[in-house]
Amino acid sequence: MIDLLDLLAFHADYADTIDSDRLEEWPGHFVEDARYVVTHVENIQEGLSAGVIYADNRAMLEDRVAALRQANIYEKQRYRHIIGLPKFLEREREGERIQCRTPFVVVRIMAGGDSLLFASGYYEDRLVRDGSALKIQARLVVCDSTAIDTLMVLPL
Amino acid sequence: MIDLLDLLAFHADYADTIDSDRLEEWPGHFVEDARYVVTHVENIQEGLSAGVIYADNRAMLEDRVAALRQANIYEKQRYRHIIGLPKFLEREREGERIQCRTPFVVVRIMAGGDSLLFASGYYEDRLVRDGSALKIQARLVVCDSTAIDTLMVLPL
Amino acid sequence: MIDLLDLLAFHADYADTIDSDRLEEWPGHFVEDARYVVTHVENIQEGLSAGVIYADNRAMLEDRVAALRQANIYEKQRYRHIIGLPKFLEREREGERIQCRTPFVVVRIMAGGDSLLFASGYYEDRLVRDGSALKIQARLVVCDSTAIDTLMVLPL
Repeated sequence: MIDLLDLLAFHADYADTIDSDRLEEWPGHFVEDARYVVTHVENIQEGLSAGVIYADNRAMLEDRVAALRQANIYEKQRYRHIIGLPKFLEREREGERIQCRTPFVVVRIMAGGDSLLFASGYYEDRLVRDGSALKIQARLVVCDSTAIDTLMVLPL
Repeated sequence: MIDLLDLLAFHADYADTIDSDRLEEWPGHFVEDARYVVTHVENIQEGLSAGVIYADNRAMLEDRVAALRQANIYEKQRYRHIIGLPKFLEREREGERIQCRTPFVVVRIMAGGDSLLFASGYYEDRLVRDGSALKIQARLVVCDSTAIDTLMVLPL
Repeated sequence: MIDLLDLLAFHADYADTIDSDRLEEWPGHFVEDARYVVTHVENIQEGLSAGVIYADNRAMLEDRVAALRQANIYEKQRYRHIIGLPKFLEREREGERIQCRTPFVVVRIMAGGDSLLFASGYYEDRLVRDGSALKIQARLVVCDSTAIDTLMVLPL
């Protein structure tokens, strides 16, 4: 049985992994054949499946982190995720698999200290219990703004 | 008995109704003779009861949504509510009616993709249990800034 | 035993004390010999213990509040804390003392109504149970930006 407290702990953990710059642990929040898609609201409204980022297995996420670590073409930056309150959408398999939607905002902090509201949106997740933790089977990250695309570097 | 988990689920649901553009469901979060007032901190500090928005029954909220859907005089926009952690103020009737205060920020996203921190403030609520859900008997939305008034379109 | 619901209630209470301008109650969230340090990420990364603010007992926090109330050299302002989801780091003494990390953003609202995203960062806390409430033994406030220092007036 997955309850609201499990969800809160999961989201806290996920955000902390990214914001503490432990990116190598980020793919560990996903099951091996997980789907991870970043898109924006207009794509969703128009029924487009095209995402700004698209991965359908964990190895692709690992590659992405490796690329981030090697490439130094982007300005150094950090994120601060503030994850809102999750809403259950569906429970399956006696509550051991759930779907939920959770709003977020992300502040981006550049090396020089400038901060800005970088992104807002929501996660639409399918999560499963894996031992004591929850793992992502599918995460759709829907950004509110279409203006985000070219700036994205760190995972959301 | 209304506990913190009930409050979290309630707030998640309320915000999702607005941010997912299911405005017609928004009045359903209120009891029939509910009071809904939007005001700002200075009005509160000066003891003024004047609100930017004032409704003392659910039908007025339904009218408001209908007007929003018909009128197209405002630029298309969406909100993203991030609702903070609720604080219990009082429990009445053996915990089946409670008062709580909950901070929020709202990001506004315009059709063109521009996002801005639109509002911050707190909800001061009187909530009652209604079956498995909580409903609003009275919601006072206190915005931190007085500069918000003329811009407000969607509900907070 | 301190659980996630205790943490949520604690953080809600702490933020509300500051944002409701009940600053005199703020030191009451700390034990008498508590440590309270405000610093930023770069200091932490470089292993510097220097903080923008440093206090190692509650009396220093009380002095700070008194000074704030007397001095009128700064422009009138308020904060709105949005505190994210806490993550447990460690449990000690059979769970009666815990360490946790919790992200935050703070919006600053000036007297004229201007709002801005003032600070983001995280709390790294050691908390103990004290009756029905939790109290702070040590709070490290790590701001994401180094650009915050000279502007800080109200507690974070």
